[in-house]
Amino acid sequence: MILDKIITLALEEDLSLGDITSDTIFTPDQRAQAVIRAKEDLVLCGQEVAAQVFHAVDAGLIVNLLKKDGDEVKKGENVLEITGRTLSILKAERTALNFMQRLSGIATVSRQFAKIGQKYGVMIVDTRKTQPGLRRLDKYSVRVGGCRNHRISLADSVMIKDNHIAAAGSIAAAVSKIKNAIGHTPKIEVETTNIDEVRQALAAGADIIMLDNMTPEQIVACKAEIKGRAIIEVSGGVNAQNLESYCAAKPDVISMGALTHSIIAKDLSLKIVKYIS
Amino acid sequence: MILDKIITLALEEDLSLGDITSDTIFTPDQRAQAVIRAKEDLVLCGQEVAAQVFHAVDAGLIVNLLKKDGDEVKKGENVLEITGRTLSILKAERTALNFMQRLSGIATVSRQFAKIGQKYGVMIVDTRKTQPGLRRLDKYSVRVGGCRNHRISLADSVMIKDNHIAAAGSIAAAVSKIKNAIGHTPKIEVETTNIDEVRQALAAGADIIMLDNMTPEQIVACKAEIKGRAIIEVSGGVNAQNLESYCAAKPDVISMGALTHSIIAKDLSLKIVKYIS
Amino acid sequence: MILDKIITLALEEDLSLGDITSDTIFTPDQRAQAVIRAKEDLVLCGQEVAAQVFHAVDAGLIVNLLKKDGDEVKKGENVLEITGRTLSILKAERTALNFMQRLSGIATVSRQFAKIGQKYGVMIVDTRKTQPGLRRLDKYSVRVGGCRNHRISLADSVMIKDNHIAAAGSIAAAVSKIKNAIGHTPKIEVETTNIDEVRQALAAGADIIMLDNMTPEQIVACKAEIKGRAIIEVSGGVNAQNLESYCAAKPDVISMGALTHSIIAKDLSLKIVKYIS
Amino acid sequence: MILDKIITLALEEDLSLGDITSDTIFTPDQRAQAVIRAKEDLVLCGQEVAAQVFHAVDAGLIVNLLKKDGDEVKKGENVLEITGRTLSILKAERTALNFMQRLSGIATVSRQFAKIGQKYGVMIVDTRKTQPGLRRLDKYSVRVGGCRNHRISLADSVMIKDNHIAAAGSIAAAVSKIKNAIGHTPKIEVETTNIDEVRQALAAGADIIMLDNMTPEQIVACKAEIKGRAIIEVSGGVNAQNLESYCAAKPDVISMGALTHSIIAKDLSLKIVKYIS
Amino acid sequence: MILDKIITLALEEDLSLGDITSDTIFTPDQRAQAVIRAKEDLVLCGQEVAAQVFHAVDAGLIVNLLKKDGDEVKKGENVLEITGRTLSILKAERTALNFMQRLSGIATVSRQFAKIGQKYGVMIVDTRKTQPGLRRLDKYSVRVGGCRNHRISLADSVMIKDNHIAAAGSIAAAVSKIKNAIGHTPKIEVETTNIDEVRQALAAGADIIMLDNMTPEQIVACKAEIKGRAIIEVSGGVNAQNLESYCAAKPDVISMGALTHSIIAKDLSLKIVKYIS
Amino acid sequence: MILDKIITLALEEDLSLGDITSDTIFTPDQRAQAVIRAKEDLVLCGQEVAAQVFHAVDAGLIVNLLKKDGDEVKKGENVLEITGRTLSILKAERTALNFMQRLSGIATVSRQFAKIGQKYGVMIVDTRKTQPGLRRLDKYSVRVGGCRNHRISLADSVMIKDNHIAAAGSIAAAVSKIKNAIGHTPKIEVETTNIDEVRQALAAGADIIMLDNMTPEQIVACKAEIKGRAIIEVSGGVNAQNLESYCAAKPDVISMGALTHSIIAKDLSLKIVKYIS
Repeated sequence: MILDKIITLALEEDLSLGDITSDTIFTPDQRAQAVIRAKEDLVLCGQEVAAQVFHAVDAGLIVNLLKKDGDEVKKGENVLEITGRTLSILKAERTALNFMQRLSGIATVSRQFAKIGQKYGVMIVDTRKTQPGLRRLDKYSVRVGGCRNHRISLADSVMIKDNHIAAAGSIAAAVSKIKNAIGHTPKIEVETTNIDEVRQALAAGADIIMLDNMTPEQIVACKAEIKGRAIIEVSGGVNAQNLESYCAAKPDVISMGALTHSIIAKDLSLKIVKYIS
Repeated sequence: MILDKIITLALEEDLSLGDITSDTIFTPDQRAQAVIRAKEDLVLCGQEVAAQVFHAVDAGLIVNLLKKDGDEVKKGENVLEITGRTLSILKAERTALNFMQRLSGIATVSRQFAKIGQKYGVMIVDTRKTQPGLRRLDKYSVRVGGCRNHRISLADSVMIKDNHIAAAGSIAAAVSKIKNAIGHTPKIEVETTNIDEVRQALAAGADIIMLDNMTPEQIVACKAEIKGRAIIEVSGGVNAQNLESYCAAKPDVISMGALTHSIIAKDLSLKIVKYIS
Repeated sequence: MILDKIITLALEEDLSLGDITSDTIFTPDQRAQAVIRAKEDLVLCGQEVAAQVFHAVDAGLIVNLLKKDGDEVKKGENVLEITGRTLSILKAERTALNFMQRLSGIATVSRQFAKIGQKYGVMIVDTRKTQPGLRRLDKYSVRVGGCRNHRISLADSVMIKDNHIAAAGSIAAAVSKIKNAIGHTPKIEVETTNIDEVRQALAAGADIIMLDNMTPEQIVACKAEIKGRAIIEVSGGVNAQNLESYCAAKPDVISMGALTHSIIAKDLSLKIVKYIS
Repeated sequence: MILDKIITLALEEDLSLGDITSDTIFTPDQRAQAVIRAKEDLVLCGQEVAAQVFHAVDAGLIVNLLKKDGDEVKKGENVLEITGRTLSILKAERTALNFMQRLSGIATVSRQFAKIGQKYGVMIVDTRKTQPGLRRLDKYSVRVGGCRNHRISLADSVMIKDNHIAAAGSIAAAVSKIKNAIGHTPKIEVETTNIDEVRQALAAGADIIMLDNMTPEQIVACKAEIKGRAIIEVSGGVNAQNLESYCAAKPDVISMGALTHSIIAKDLSLKIVKYIS
Repeated sequence: MILDKIITLALEEDLSLGDITSDTIFTPDQRAQAVIRAKEDLVLCGQEVAAQVFHAVDAGLIVNLLKKDGDEVKKGENVLEITGRTLSILKAERTALNFMQRLSGIATVSRQFAKIGQKYGVMIVDTRKTQPGLRRLDKYSVRVGGCRNHRISLADSVMIKDNHIAAAGSIAAAVSKIKNAIGHTPKIEVETTNIDEVRQALAAGADIIMLDNMTPEQIVACKAEIKGRAIIEVSGGVNAQNLESYCAAKPDVISMGALTHSIIAKDLSLKIVKYIS
Repeated sequence: MILDKIITLALEEDLSLGDITSDTIFTPDQRAQAVIRAKEDLVLCGQEVAAQVFHAVDAGLIVNLLKKDGDEVKKGENVLEITGRTLSILKAERTALNFMQRLSGIATVSRQFAKIGQKYGVMIVDTRKTQPGLRRLDKYSVRVGGCRNHRISLADSVMIKDNHIAAAGSIAAAVSKIKNAIGHTPKIEVETTNIDEVRQALAAGADIIMLDNMTPEQIVACKAEIKGRAIIEVSGGVNAQNLESYCAAKPDVISMGALTHSIIAKDLSLKIVKYIS
């Protein structure tokens, strides 16, 4: 139910005025079986959403998941099988693939980053730099790949940044203002840019201290200062190339926008394998 | 009005349950001026959509466009200025940036591909491999960059592919079926994979012949066969690396999924530059 | 999926606050069989949309199509059979009939116009003068009747009218501006009001030349000028009375707003034929 | 606020993928003044909804109502003036006119029927045979023309028809069941087909007795029976041709589906009268 | 179909970003059987809406109604049984219960008030003081309890209040203005505050006279004046404590905002009774 | 923007078919000034949402907040002033009041509970037992009154209940499963019913331990066991009558469903104070 809106939007932009080719060539009676096939190695993600796209176009389509989200699929393997009206399969094809190609792209890179993190005992998390309308699916794909989620929206944990600190007057004042207003469930994270701010955040009782745009060396120094009294999150400037060097500094968590903002679509395509009747 | 849905969806997923940090730190009375700044060189795109995001959060925000879509912006330049309630600016920040970073990513790569195409007199167009919910914005960004749009949805031109040909019995039969049913405005495109199919499409009266996954050499041969009697579109397997070699074969049009399916977000960020009152 | 919105809107305006009569008289357990019957001769259209209305009210209703869209139905013939909760059948009745009566009205007149066009080898097409919210259904009914569709929305082909020409400076300038901006798929249509403009449109490379509000004699003259180098579309002032005289001038296409903007509803009614349990 | 949905739907179906002609020809800076003009005599209706369409496309358009709903407008008179971005005016044009042409068509015929009714002291009312999605606008146009509204939805008054009577066992039983369940505000109307049923409805305490498909003579007889103890509504088979003969039988009310189900669009068009800047 | 919006809204606010606990603990394969149980004596209401909530979360859940709306249920009795995916049951739990607890609260108090009314032959009705978004469900619960509904919206009967009278000039002028404009189906109610206004309303031909904030003694006096020529509705200041004293004055109808604006939720809870597979 | 949906829904259910009384009595030109007045002492809440309701009906209404949310208002004081079209004011009246009466009801009781909590240094928080569609407004009103918010949705903190423990096998297993899957931002709360479970939760590393349905004595015992190593939340069976006795046991937090599930509406009404023009 929750994904209805983005699926509806995606189908509307492709289909709302009809499919003048297929509507003319096929009668509603013609039926076929099709498969979706990986055209390169990938970590699969988006099976359920693809099934939902096919069902949104035609509740009578039978969708059979040959693989499940998270599977490492080889080039040439079939991942999904759809049986039903040819017309419906072809109308849903591009939209279903557009979802799967992005989500598998996220899951594939997430798997790769998660493995690096695991080697050093570092949790790799995403950010709110997701595609408009795809927040929940993007974050789901990150988990499928093996990384984890930072906060999902502006409502679910406190993140005190430079502008909040400036407005409150100091880190101490900002944290205190928050503690006097919110309930007992959200953790409080404070963004810091140097060791002095780290000390202030620690003194103020931050649950999580974010080290923003620091070098691995600075991270090591901050970690020595924090001594386990707060969760250490590294953020800013971390990418596929330098991830391992940041992991080596052993923060608790590294957050990476690249998990969701710059995705190389994985290649998947739909083929009709059999005409029925 | 038309972009309302995806903007609403994007804001809902970030904001629908509130912003527990900013709502606590700022009063509704506090005002500021902020800028959005390029953190790398880019072809700018998304100014209007960003303005609409800010206005969706707070109709009272004053948004001043310092650059316009399509401008080549240097690292460090400010592109947008927002004045109004600090609370509203910060709530809209991430969503506005998520749009601009993707759209500028598309425009930047589109500009680069368009220049290559222009050198050879080849029109570069996009595909329907756009992000779910962003079809119209993605295609707009392609145009801003300098490339052009292939069909926007399944309704606006005819594209006869392998499955249609198989169902109709032959290229001739498929084209004929279409001509007997549709109005006089859509062009008819036929996908071909070899020179024999090209001849059939030509004989059937196709307006556009797509050469699917052919080598530059094969394209040259097909072009010699077609002799200007149909528009030649090359598709499949074209990317940033090999684009120029395909252009050298001088088809009329090259369509590239890479224009929209695999985008590197351009780096833009929001800074508060002044607190007012 | 695509029709959901207008069906929802139609049901909401009739049913959103309940049906105080039937909700009181019937229990949810009472079941019946009903038919929809033609009360005059008509070309049937709207069977699928009616079925969808019944299912939107109650997914448990069994709808049996006794005729199919496009059938020429005689007064007194049954076209649709519904079995299930009496309460649901009666709640959906008016909305289902409101759709069918309009759509069958369009299909009936479209059939009549199409026959005239066929006699002269002229394609009859509709316009964008459709009922708000019913664009796709109205255009579908036109096709069911035997006429064809002009462009479906402002996005699917280019139509250069007087205001565009005035703004660009000339027909040549307007066409050139379009050709330098759009992709290779849309055809370009130019509206002309005299033979001089026809010559300009031809020189500019228009794919379709619309002869606006011309007499049959003028059309013949323009046709002699165009000599098959562009598709000729006649528009303006054509109605049921004079259609044949325009067809006799043998343009390629005649577009008629009357196909959708002024429809006499065909009479259909629902009768309960059997109470079950 | 209430009309938003149908206006949004109407604009979406025309504009959701853009206007490839005007978007190319005009820059957002070009401004113009346009008028909407009656091309035949009509009773005007739809000024406010047209204004809302223009504002939905562009809140910056200035709309000046030169006439008001209900005015009898002569061929050639201007009714509405719009000033602002040319691009916005042209994008909204067709949708605004589609509303106005239908609504003025309803108001015009309503005015004509109302005059006949007034001559005999008979109230002419509409039915629920309105266009899907346009219930409220259709009924508004009926009032603008001078006729009045029967119930607006299934929730606002009780209408006991043949199926209800059959299910309850008798007119008396049906009315009694309703009286034992509903509140004190809705009136109860009973549909009758002969004088015996009229007597039963009267005995049961109906507020309104509908005489369904009776001849003027039968109506006179029923009226003599009812003697002012219930409101008499005539329904079924009344049209422009025979309306006066039914009025002559002097029922209290005549309801006519033709007021909304079969409308001849009135001809209105938009002209740009001045280019500004 | 009609309840979709409020159910969607309710589920979105609880579930739109996921259920981070249950999504982690349960696999989609785990199945269970759960019951909803009354934790205090109550008049049950909301069974269908609860079923719809469970089905909105997961169409595969099997919901078995053990009691029906209107039943007087004892503490400890089970009222609903749900079988299916554990994950889906738990995700829907809180939303389903939030509906049932409110609606049963309304039905319980409505039953109590209805019994008092019945003793005196007085109809007890609700008002428009319902919870935003729950108008139809609140009014349904009132009926389930045994009271009845006043008008459902501003469209279904006429209510002339002080502001209308002031604007029109007098009760007579207001009623006359209404009678000259509306159709024949709505009843006309006039709000009065003293016996003089009652006389005016009667003279003007009001169908219903509302006695606003009068004492039982004043009501008796007004009733003697009205002598059955209009329905008498008492409103204002009636609550659980004084209802019986107002009933003793024997008006036809008493309307009570307390039926819906101040509801004590009845205690119901969901228990998993069996894990399957 | 975020409240649009529930406001739209509330206005639709009252107004979507029009206001047959006011639409007839008032012309759109008539203007007035009205106030909303407290008819009993209350803690005010809902000023902004009321303003938004008035603006949704008519963007031209001028709304002047005479008091602000959280103010303790005395019977007879005016809280809001609206100036503009009389017709618009009256159409929005009931919906605006329905929101304000509920929200002020919540704020008033929240203020009372917060004062008791403050006396003992106990934080009082709400639950997810909010009215469908009003989650965010209900929780806002709780904060306005002085209590605080427990989690807002199922996504923003982990709550491990009996069913989760049963499925995982033990408290330790459930917590461990969660810690191995989620990110670093959510706190983990475990529901316990006896001191042994408290010990298990503590050992498993729960951030918050909920003591479910314990007596004040048991709470004291558990607190002695926990010794500040986790936040202690008391839940179940706490109401206005016994709140102080639970506070005396000095848990960190008490959560109370009664803050939102059983609200006595505060009495507010709208009066027109001046007719303008």
